[in-house]
Amino acid sequence: MSILCVGSVALDSIETPFGRAERVLGGSAVFFAAAATVFSPVRIVGVVGEDYPLSDLDFLAARGADLEGIERRSGESFFWAGRYHYDLNSRDTLETRLGVFADFRPRIPDRFKDARHVFLGNIDPALQNEVLDQVEAPEVVACDTMDYWIEGNRKELLGLLERVRILLVNDAEARQLADEPNLLKASIWIRERGPEIVVVKKGEHGAILFAEDWVFFVPGYPLERVFDPTGAGDAFAGGFMGYLAGAGTLDEGSLRRAMVFGSAMGSYAVEDFSVNRFRTLDVSDVRRRVHEFRRMTAFETHPEAIDV
Amino acid sequence: MSILCVGSVALDSIETPFGRAERVLGGSAVFFAAAATVFSPVRIVGVVGEDYPLSDLDFLAARGADLEGIERRSGESFFWAGRYHYDLNSRDTLETRLGVFADFRPRIPDRFKDARHVFLGNIDPALQNEVLDQVEAPEVVACDTMDYWIEGNRKELLGLLERVRILLVNDAEARQLADEPNLLKASIWIRERGPEIVVVKKGEHGAILFAEDWVFFVPGYPLERVFDPTGAGDAFAGGFMGYLAGAGTLDEGSLRRAMVFGSAMGSYAVEDFSVNRFRTLDVSDVRRRVHEFRRMTAFETHPEAIDV
Repeated sequence: MSILCVGSVALDSIETPFGRAERVLGGSAVFFAAAATVFSPVRIVGVVGEDYPLSDLDFLAARGADLEGIERRSGESFFWAGRYHYDLNSRDTLETRLGVFADFRPRIPDRFKDARHVFLGNIDPALQNEVLDQVEAPEVVACDTMDYWIEGNRKELLGLLERVRILLVNDAEARQLADEPNLLKASIWIRERGPEIVVVKKGEHGAILFAEDWVFFVPGYPLERVFDPTGAGDAFAGGFMGYLAGAGTLDEGSLRRAMVFGSAMGSYAVEDFSVNRFRTLDVSDVRRRVHEFRRMTAFETHPEAIDV
Repeated sequence: MSILCVGSVALDSIETPFGRAERVLGGSAVFFAAAATVFSPVRIVGVVGEDYPLSDLDFLAARGADLEGIERRSGESFFWAGRYHYDLNSRDTLETRLGVFADFRPRIPDRFKDARHVFLGNIDPALQNEVLDQVEAPEVVACDTMDYWIEGNRKELLGLLERVRILLVNDAEARQLADEPNLLKASIWIRERGPEIVVVKKGEHGAILFAEDWVFFVPGYPLERVFDPTGAGDAFAGGFMGYLAGAGTLDEGSLRRAMVFGSAMGSYAVEDFSVNRFRTLDVSDVRRRVHEFRRMTAFETHPEAIDV
């Protein structure tokens, strides 16, 4: 099943301890689609300026991304420049220019309106609500958000949560949203406001899925070289939602596997600048990494081992 | 098999958002033993002052802790006072008085010298080396350390690592020791200097075991209420080493299970002040929690799930 993804389509200039990249493909929708198309077709809705190298997205189209919903407007594309510190766990934003993204009003093409799976990337919750208004019968709606909207448009965000089945946020955002430092309690607070499933992304520490009566934990994949952390969270969301759309169910086993595929996709995102690692990613890579996740977490409890 | 544990036997005064406790049992050796004795007898070597309420350790003795190696000297016991912040992830040290611990020179009682399993709690690496000099034929030596020794007595610490099979440290310590922000690379650097196994504790984010050709990850147990984080790392070490001593082997399956028992014990440590939670802990609690860890991390990869 195809996923409708609404989010930013941006250009990033990145500096890391290992090098720099100028005006490369970025944005939540691009990272999401690069990861999700491994599992499922994706229809992207976004906006770019005249300066955007749309032909650079051809590799996504070749893998099943429908780009018809990317509107081209006069003006400049969303641009972000950042510099990562030595340990890659913190970064400075050097420049943000919203450009045409400042006035973005998502218009869903008619032939996208039958979408069953919807991913609402991190944009104004008022716009996220407008997207849902345009979709005929969404079944699995997932969304991301950030501190700026949690603080600045909380009421709209809480309205959105009532329409969302899966919230994907990082740990700081979950705590801020619920005003609760304990993640388990924060997840309960959030789930009481709509989402059945809360996925908390913790970067190198992995991710946790909180459901009604179970919790699933996936580690971050330990890499010898984290090249560029940009987009890892969106790639996680892409792997997670892509897998679920492909599976066509939200049963517990599928949700657990979706977490692992999400973490695998997040780990690929950081292995190169921009979405470059996804250009050459093939199924055997993904299969191998998922089995490595299994080996990293599997243990057997022998009855005698705990009869102490 | 009995474990020889050398470390601090202290009194702690703790403030958390949930309450305060004055001059309660603390110290690395006490938390280690409280957790390890669930699995294996422990022989403690440490020092206390005249003010120490040794009878409060009776519950440890009843569970198989041999206290003969706790020397009582004139003066004051090691005392630490700390206050945890709202989110329990950071704390201020209000007071540290080393007391008799300042001149601690571990003397291993003759009947402890046949120890096969040794845990060297976080003390001066020169003293950790002196302990090993007194043990006849140690087989499984594990040690902890901290930033103070990594910076201040690095040469002695590197000498110690050559004699150690398992290093247990937190993530900041691993990075500092190897001068390398990437944990996987840091673990390789450390393993090249002696330890076969590096266990990196990450608090609420769980722990990672790095071995020669495999890695094992265990999450932190998600609790609705973290009451007092003091001693969680030492309780982790106690569960880990206690399980290994009971198993009598360092095979891969035992090491994986030891990580889970370690994380379970760390989670119990934070449920109450001091070692109080361990007073009532029974085997059925531990068994239940370990099965919950299994449920938190288990997933099956179906071949069709990754033939995408």
